[in-house]
Amino acid sequence: MPEGSMGISNIATCTAPVNIAVIKYWGKRNEELILPINSSLSVTLHQDQLKTTTTIATSRSFQEDRIWLNGKEEDINHPRLQSCLREIRRLARKRRSDGDPGLDSTGLSHKVHICSVNNFPTAAGLASSAAGFACLVHTLARVFGIEAELSAIARQGSGSACRSMYGGFVQWIMGHQDDGKDSLAQQVEPETHWPELRILVLVASAERKPIGSTSGMHTSVETSCLLKHRAEAVVPVRMDGMIEAVQRKDFPAFAELTMKDSNQFHATCLDTYPPIFYLNNVSHQIINLVHQYNNYYGETRVAYTFDAGPNAVIFTLQEHVSEFIQVVRHFFPPETNDGHDFMFPCVVLKAGPGPCVVDDPTQHLLGTDGWPKKTE
Amino acid sequence: MPEGSMGISNIATCTAPVNIAVIKYWGKRNEELILPINSSLSVTLHQDQLKTTTTIATSRSFQEDRIWLNGKEEDINHPRLQSCLREIRRLARKRRSDGDPGLDSTGLSHKVHICSVNNFPTAAGLASSAAGFACLVHTLARVFGIEAELSAIARQGSGSACRSMYGGFVQWIMGHQDDGKDSLAQQVEPETHWPELRILVLVASAERKPIGSTSGMHTSVETSCLLKHRAEAVVPVRMDGMIEAVQRKDFPAFAELTMKDSNQFHATCLDTYPPIFYLNNVSHQIINLVHQYNNYYGETRVAYTFDAGPNAVIFTLQEHVSEFIQVVRHFFPPETNDGHDFMFPCVVLKAGPGPCVVDDPTQHLLGTDGWPKKTE
Repeated sequence: MPEGSMGISNIATCTAPVNIAVIKYWGKRNEELILPINSSLSVTLHQDQLKTTTTIATSRSFQEDRIWLNGKEEDINHPRLQSCLREIRRLARKRRSDGDPGLDSTGLSHKVHICSVNNFPTAAGLASSAAGFACLVHTLARVFGIEAELSAIARQGSGSACRSMYGGFVQWIMGHQDDGKDSLAQQVEPETHWPELRILVLVASAERKPIGSTSGMHTSVETSCLLKHRAEAVVPVRMDGMIEAVQRKDFPAFAELTMKDSNQFHATCLDTYPPIFYLNNVSHQIINLVHQYNNYYGETRVAYTFDAGPNAVIFTLQEHVSEFIQVVRHFFPPETNDGHDFMFPCVVLKAGPGPCVVDDPTQHLLGTDGWPKKTE
Repeated sequence: MPEGSMGISNIATCTAPVNIAVIKYWGKRNEELILPINSSLSVTLHQDQLKTTTTIATSRSFQEDRIWLNGKEEDINHPRLQSCLREIRRLARKRRSDGDPGLDSTGLSHKVHICSVNNFPTAAGLASSAAGFACLVHTLARVFGIEAELSAIARQGSGSACRSMYGGFVQWIMGHQDDGKDSLAQQVEPETHWPELRILVLVASAERKPIGSTSGMHTSVETSCLLKHRAEAVVPVRMDGMIEAVQRKDFPAFAELTMKDSNQFHATCLDTYPPIFYLNNVSHQIINLVHQYNNYYGETRVAYTFDAGPNAVIFTLQEHVSEFIQVVRHFFPPETNDGHDFMFPCVVLKAGPGPCVVDDPTQHLLGTDGWPKKTE
């Protein structure tokens, strides 16, 4: 590492994936620590097409912590960003005070520069904050030389970010402790477990959602009696069923639970007061199309799930992908734009690994001076 | 009564009202007897503008029971129609066997001709079957000289018909007996109790609903765990709150419970598998408009409710009617027909009385020969 007074003391670049929940997270029991009212389960998407890349550098010459997102400097004082920085530095100090002889302690008091880019539009119904905070925490840990369980820290950035800390099929165990130490992500199966599984993202609208998930789930917890029942009585049973379906690679069981849980999540949004609508007429048509398609074949070949937005995420097996895309194109031809946004299958994805370290130094988003590279 | 061999022995004409549920009925525990999984509460609409009119005649010359609905002969063997006929005749026979001296028993073995008309489009999201079966049962009872509690019979024609047997504010007490004898409608307050209350029907679409309520609620009972919880844990509390709000004429409390219960009913439809959608984008916009309107004034002046269709029913007080109609016209001008059907407030209604007897013999829908009049 360069040790010149103006140089950077440490630098690392990592990438992290998006995840799609098949048992949904909606509602916090502790808003500050981001502790959920129920466990959830997701599929980590391959980073081939969707990922966040983050470079973090430390230097004694940096005056303050700073962050640039997608080319624009953002407020470093965002509380959730501060939570992640604070927790990582606490772990680093703890490791030094525990007397790890191999630890380079010079960087501990240094400020950080953080530079992060997504290769997909934010707030398009894909959980960009999950990939973003997972990447932040993974890169911070690398810079500070930490090798601990990190999902509880990522969770404090954005709840679903904890699930992006692992590849494949990941559960976020809600935990029961008040301090949240047992509210962690855990891999159920790696991405290699079910190679035939495919994920299609159908972009119904790239508009920002009318009600963000943080305020939406707050209102739901306050007002929906169905959400409370869902969290207490329904999700525990579904988690067991979903883990079993994943382990057995039982697509019909996986698909049915995925669809039912998406519908129930949106049902609790409708039971919120005032009600929250994320599904629109196009979403309803996609849902009806999937059920008709499965009925036609007399078996569950395709499943939908919708997060806090109208975009459909479709699960199917490799052998059905091209036919299903044709069916979607038939019923939603690009030319008929009847008051809605253009809709088409934008990407065919697979399950993929968790955060990765980028070893190639030319890929750093920060220059050797520790400032964002001009030419991006 | 004319007693000629070809003449009719008895004839009666009655009218019956539509009702709008503010605590919704969705789900049966016994499909044959039509016993609900929860109690419900409705407002009976005034018959000035929406009503069913039914004439029933008996004659020894009639070869068989027959029915004409809106000018067209229908199948008399419809099971629910048969339930009502059977139950009324059972009551009539019972009364004779109990030895009521004033009873004219000649008509008991006679066949009936039934002629019924609605003055509003069927299946437009307004519960035409409720008014229809309430009118059928009330008129049958008149023809057979029965003066018993009739809501349990109307219930066997169409569940919500039992609430159309009374005026004003009516609860359908779910009951607990297996034979359904305690599953009855009961007036909470008469129509004169809250004279300022107004009801607007906003017709978003006159199309028939994609999934009828009978099959929809069957699927919901089979598949929605949220519906079960709603029926067992939520509705009992809401029934108490709604009865109190009606008795106190507390519009904000009445309005909030009405909106929450409409939303929760549609939430359980969404939690059904496959999901059922009755609300469309226009319904969502109406809902958002009502919440924005109430927020603007800082008080709950207007409430929406939606049955198994996209048409909104709005509750408000007389003083706010004209302003709210202007607001709706502003946001849904007749000329912008963006892929949806034309929307406008079609009728301003009040609460009204239960079934009425029409004494004027010129109003009979059947002629003195007992057959439908040609000139309707």
